[in-house]
Amino acid sequence: MRRKDDPSDLIARVRRGEHAAAARALTLVVDEDPAADELSREFFKSAGAAQKIGVCGPPGAGKSTLTGRLIGLYRKRGLKVGILAVDPSSPITGGAFLGDRLRVMEHATDPGVFIRSLASRGMVGGLTHTIFGAIHVLEALGCGKIIVETVGTGQDEVDIASVADTVVYVTTPAMGDEIQAMKAGAMEVGDVFVVNKADLAGRDKAVADLRSALGLGRASAAPAGHHGSQARLTAASVEPRESSWEPPVCATAAISGEGIEELGKILDAHLERLSSTGEGRERLKRQHSAELRFWIERRVVQRALDRVTEKSLEDLLAHKTDPATLGREIFRS
Amino acid sequence: MRRKDDPSDLIARVRRGEHAAAARALTLVVDEDPAADELSREFFKSAGAAQKIGVCGPPGAGKSTLTGRLIGLYRKRGLKVGILAVDPSSPITGGAFLGDRLRVMEHATDPGVFIRSLASRGMVGGLTHTIFGAIHVLEALGCGKIIVETVGTGQDEVDIASVADTVVYVTTPAMGDEIQAMKAGAMEVGDVFVVNKADLAGRDKAVADLRSALGLGRASAAPAGHHGSQARLTAASVEPRESSWEPPVCATAAISGEGIEELGKILDAHLERLSSTGEGRERLKRQHSAELRFWIERRVVQRALDRVTEKSLEDLLAHKTDPATLGREIFRS
Repeated sequence: MRRKDDPSDLIARVRRGEHAAAARALTLVVDEDPAADELSREFFKSAGAAQKIGVCGPPGAGKSTLTGRLIGLYRKRGLKVGILAVDPSSPITGGAFLGDRLRVMEHATDPGVFIRSLASRGMVGGLTHTIFGAIHVLEALGCGKIIVETVGTGQDEVDIASVADTVVYVTTPAMGDEIQAMKAGAMEVGDVFVVNKADLAGRDKAVADLRSALGLGRASAAPAGHHGSQARLTAASVEPRESSWEPPVCATAAISGEGIEELGKILDAHLERLSSTGEGRERLKRQHSAELRFWIERRVVQRALDRVTEKSLEDLLAHKTDPATLGREIFRS
Repeated sequence: MRRKDDPSDLIARVRRGEHAAAARALTLVVDEDPAADELSREFFKSAGAAQKIGVCGPPGAGKSTLTGRLIGLYRKRGLKVGILAVDPSSPITGGAFLGDRLRVMEHATDPGVFIRSLASRGMVGGLTHTIFGAIHVLEALGCGKIIVETVGTGQDEVDIASVADTVVYVTTPAMGDEIQAMKAGAMEVGDVFVVNKADLAGRDKAVADLRSALGLGRASAAPAGHHGSQARLTAASVEPRESSWEPPVCATAAISGEGIEELGKILDAHLERLSSTGEGRERLKRQHSAELRFWIERRVVQRALDRVTEKSLEDLLAHKTDPATLGREIFRS
């Protein structure tokens, strides 16, 4: 920690909304700087302040362009928006095409938008435990919406579902085969499904295929034009049931902005539902539980492993001890 | 633990080579029966006794048929062979075709062969930490060779490379595209590569493609006929260098048995090399280190998480505490 990183000063500056302070705090937290403990404890006091929206799906689905559109939507409402991108193919992290990058980065100079790529800091595509601390920094900064963009390969240390309040799974009509082959787990994780890059030709089939793959009944598909002009690309709508949320399948063309207003309404409806049913509180509890679990795994296990000496490994090789006995000794000391 | 499972009796019976006792001990160890601790400690004394051969690769590559052939090869030498199958598509675990299953299971009544499917015991395709304990049971039983058959998807909790002394990666000529798309990690893990189901038509190209994908020079390819008739299907041979092992690429037709003798020689050469260079000792140390790590993660973290009360989660929600503070408190108590 640099001399200028006085913790209480940094915390105060983040709470005042200073982006430079948030950027520095994020670096300390994500790098697991030993001195970041005090910061993490303080920032945790803001935990739960934002709606955390996970945007996941295969590379090339247009997650970043969609994220850019959602930023625009929330900025129009005057909300401060935070983006954490852990997708190495994301334009935010330097991947993808220059055009995409420009479309997202146009928000980078907006003082109401805080964008941070985490892909180069130990999160190569997948989520790791430091995502929790990063989120709390942005919550302390005053972000009402935090978008976590990730590939979500199922190989992540941390599951997006244990991080986000609302998980948006993004795919495209061209990815039909991929959807069929998709693991059940990936499908179960989504609260909202988006068929992006949906043009008139492929849209209905793509939405129907995805609904079918999700095992959703067709009965709940909204009638054409039900939601007015914004619903033109939307085949299914939000129809929360008494006891369960049937994931809406929403068609968008993020590049032109079509379907984004509708997606925004769906995300609002999901937040409302999280709040009214108590499910939001349960999810927050699960998130805290996961954060605690990773804290324990990381810190305690690491400290234990630091005590594994070359001699103790030699003792194992010589069968003078065994893993269980050695493990217990390490923890007693 | 049942009444009849007196630990010292069970241990003695396993050491005498009783399969029924080994089967019972394996169940206790893999189920992590609390009373299995004593067994694990005892069986660890046999750690390192066997050459552990990992057979991995995509489903349909013929891993089980190849495993069956290796069993036959080692049985001819009079060695006791243990097989741990964690591949749900393996005929051993009930998947694949009846013909394949019969080919492997023909060894099941051989008192010199111990076969155990672990796929239904918490290892659904991937390796988990209990594999270490299972291996030590088979080592105590007197197995000189232990074959661990796994899909090796890269999503496993435990990497085959931290379990096996020698990793055999199996593929087929038809899986060319798959090889191209294969992750570098999967390629790096193999000590020996097998192009199985190699017939005259596709064999040379398949071996060349694989060598190319592996970044291996063509200079070391053995001249045709160099190894006599068994080498007919073998394009490359074992050529250990002074300081590094260039993974041999071996062509086999496991269903007819062609190339198996050659593969056996390659596996012997790798074992010899592990021994002569000290690399075997280093690998064993890494295996023990991984086993210790998983013991610590599993037992200690689990015990810590057992102490996480509903009240402590409520305290997190109310920001009365934070994960780091709570984590420390749990460990102090």
